[in-house]
Amino acid sequence: MAQVPKTCKVILADSIGKNMLVEVQESRDAFRKEHGIERKLCLAAFLANDDPHAVKYAEWSQKTSQENGIDFQLHRVDKDDLEEKIMAANVDNGVDGIIVYYPVFPGNLERDRYIQETVALDKDVEGMCHRHLQNMYHNIRFLDPPTNQLKSILPCTPLAVVKILEHLHIYNTIIPYGNRLYGKTITVINRSEVNGRPLAALLANDGATVYSVDLTGTQVFTRGDGIRQLRHQVLDKDADFGLKQCLPLSDVVIGGVPSEAFKVPTELLRDGAVCVNFSSFRNFDGPAVKEKASIYVPSVGKVTVAMLLRNLVRLSANRMATGGKLE
Amino acid sequence: MAQVPKTCKVILADSIGKNMLVEVQESRDAFRKEHGIERKLCLAAFLANDDPHAVKYAEWSQKTSQENGIDFQLHRVDKDDLEEKIMAANVDNGVDGIIVYYPVFPGNLERDRYIQETVALDKDVEGMCHRHLQNMYHNIRFLDPPTNQLKSILPCTPLAVVKILEHLHIYNTIIPYGNRLYGKTITVINRSEVNGRPLAALLANDGATVYSVDLTGTQVFTRGDGIRQLRHQVLDKDADFGLKQCLPLSDVVIGGVPSEAFKVPTELLRDGAVCVNFSSFRNFDGPAVKEKASIYVPSVGKVTVAMLLRNLVRLSANRMATGGKLE
Repeated sequence: MAQVPKTCKVILADSIGKNMLVEVQESRDAFRKEHGIERKLCLAAFLANDDPHAVKYAEWSQKTSQENGIDFQLHRVDKDDLEEKIMAANVDNGVDGIIVYYPVFPGNLERDRYIQETVALDKDVEGMCHRHLQNMYHNIRFLDPPTNQLKSILPCTPLAVVKILEHLHIYNTIIPYGNRLYGKTITVINRSEVNGRPLAALLANDGATVYSVDLTGTQVFTRGDGIRQLRHQVLDKDADFGLKQCLPLSDVVIGGVPSEAFKVPTELLRDGAVCVNFSSFRNFDGPAVKEKASIYVPSVGKVTVAMLLRNLVRLSANRMATGGKLE
Repeated sequence: MAQVPKTCKVILADSIGKNMLVEVQESRDAFRKEHGIERKLCLAAFLANDDPHAVKYAEWSQKTSQENGIDFQLHRVDKDDLEEKIMAANVDNGVDGIIVYYPVFPGNLERDRYIQETVALDKDVEGMCHRHLQNMYHNIRFLDPPTNQLKSILPCTPLAVVKILEHLHIYNTIIPYGNRLYGKTITVINRSEVNGRPLAALLANDGATVYSVDLTGTQVFTRGDGIRQLRHQVLDKDADFGLKQCLPLSDVVIGGVPSEAFKVPTELLRDGAVCVNFSSFRNFDGPAVKEKASIYVPSVGKVTVAMLLRNLVRLSANRMATGGKLE
């Protein structure tokens, strides 16, 4: 008698991230060779808080950068010196990319937003400058249309989730590029400006119907009937349309709630749903979800770090293409 | 400004079938070489009616067989001589496979069933002998467990649809073999014993939730909660659960209604559904479905014929493996 195969395939970000780091190394080596660059690419990182998740992310990105031949300069700075330090790094030709660990000013999202905008567009590895964000929301992939040589940068965690969904074959490569999520229904739980909202927009721009859920309510992001629009539109759902309504409809459920207490209600998941958690906390009840999901990705951090280095290589290529220098 | 990509990708069975015929040729050539077989493989075909679809299928299979180096012997016979002719072919070592074009006795399914059972198990290219059907329904892939050298034969049209869904990446290869449709909801419209019911069973055995709809009502085929069972179970739905209820839930909609008049109601399809028609008639309204589906496959016949030849090669390999002769 054949064995019943396990219901759920658990996929660790580590294994996906490793392959992506190999691709990053290859594109970096090709780029350095093409331009005769001798020195390592340099990522300047600014840590101005003691948030344990930020510290962990900083340590991970430092370790991964070093393992992959990137010069990672971690600066522990005072909040009040941060803007000056970033401005100096902006004009330092020895710095190729800048990352800041947030929150810098906990509870004051506008001040953090100000800091994000301080980073020069051509060194913004996080894709958090307004122009990068605007391009992402408008489904525009280049900074220099119609030449289209300079790629716009996408924020690391949403991009990591996209790359994971590609790896999981949720993106259907039979369908033309740009529409590969058409027919998929996806719930994203969290609508923060840094993660949940950009992610919902990216997925809807690729053709999905995306339910974006947070404490303030549910919105649906789509490219309209028959995905005829070039970019997503957002519609508010009624106040009584929440997880109970979205989850049974969803092929993919993505958790990003920054809270120990929150758990996705497993009983609402569709049999065979694909579940991905990008929160630092576990948004899914592991043992229960494995009895119901077809694929479960418990964390994405390792892929996020790979995307950070990918963005660094892209920015360096953009700067060389526009006559910039790497000294 | 970028062009909006087309909503729907139309995929013709011809292009899929061609690749599959190349695979069939390769496995046949490897098989002939291994066993030092000089002559062509021979398929004996019996046409005992004037049904235009049967005649067309016979002509297609003859043409494709000849193009692919198969000796296709088409016998036009009287209904009343058919059983004797089949029995003679069963014991003729020069015949490797037998196909009969149905209906032989229109309106008398039991007599056709009797004819199907007359074909020897080891020459049944259509997978319609009881043992082949039973293995298919029970999700058993070999005729000789536990040795598992002799592959059981699957009926050509349902197998063609499975192969098409694999080609379309509806089968997710990230998920373990045997579970690759887990999480997918599929409606199959038609529950005939030769096509619709075997197809629903195959898809459910691979992990899908399958709504099987015909004029008598709707059934749901699944491997149970968390697909813990080895094979599918069938449950009747309430009398008021029909296309109106299934279609909006379905990732994939498969039409197999043998009628000019029937059309799948496009307005009930989910945005981005995958639509496949295996009927000889067009079950979808082409222009309308292209405005709503992500992928549309208007017919499967060319793949069905490829599966016929694939089964012929498998049967020949099975016979050699059990000490049979090809004279």
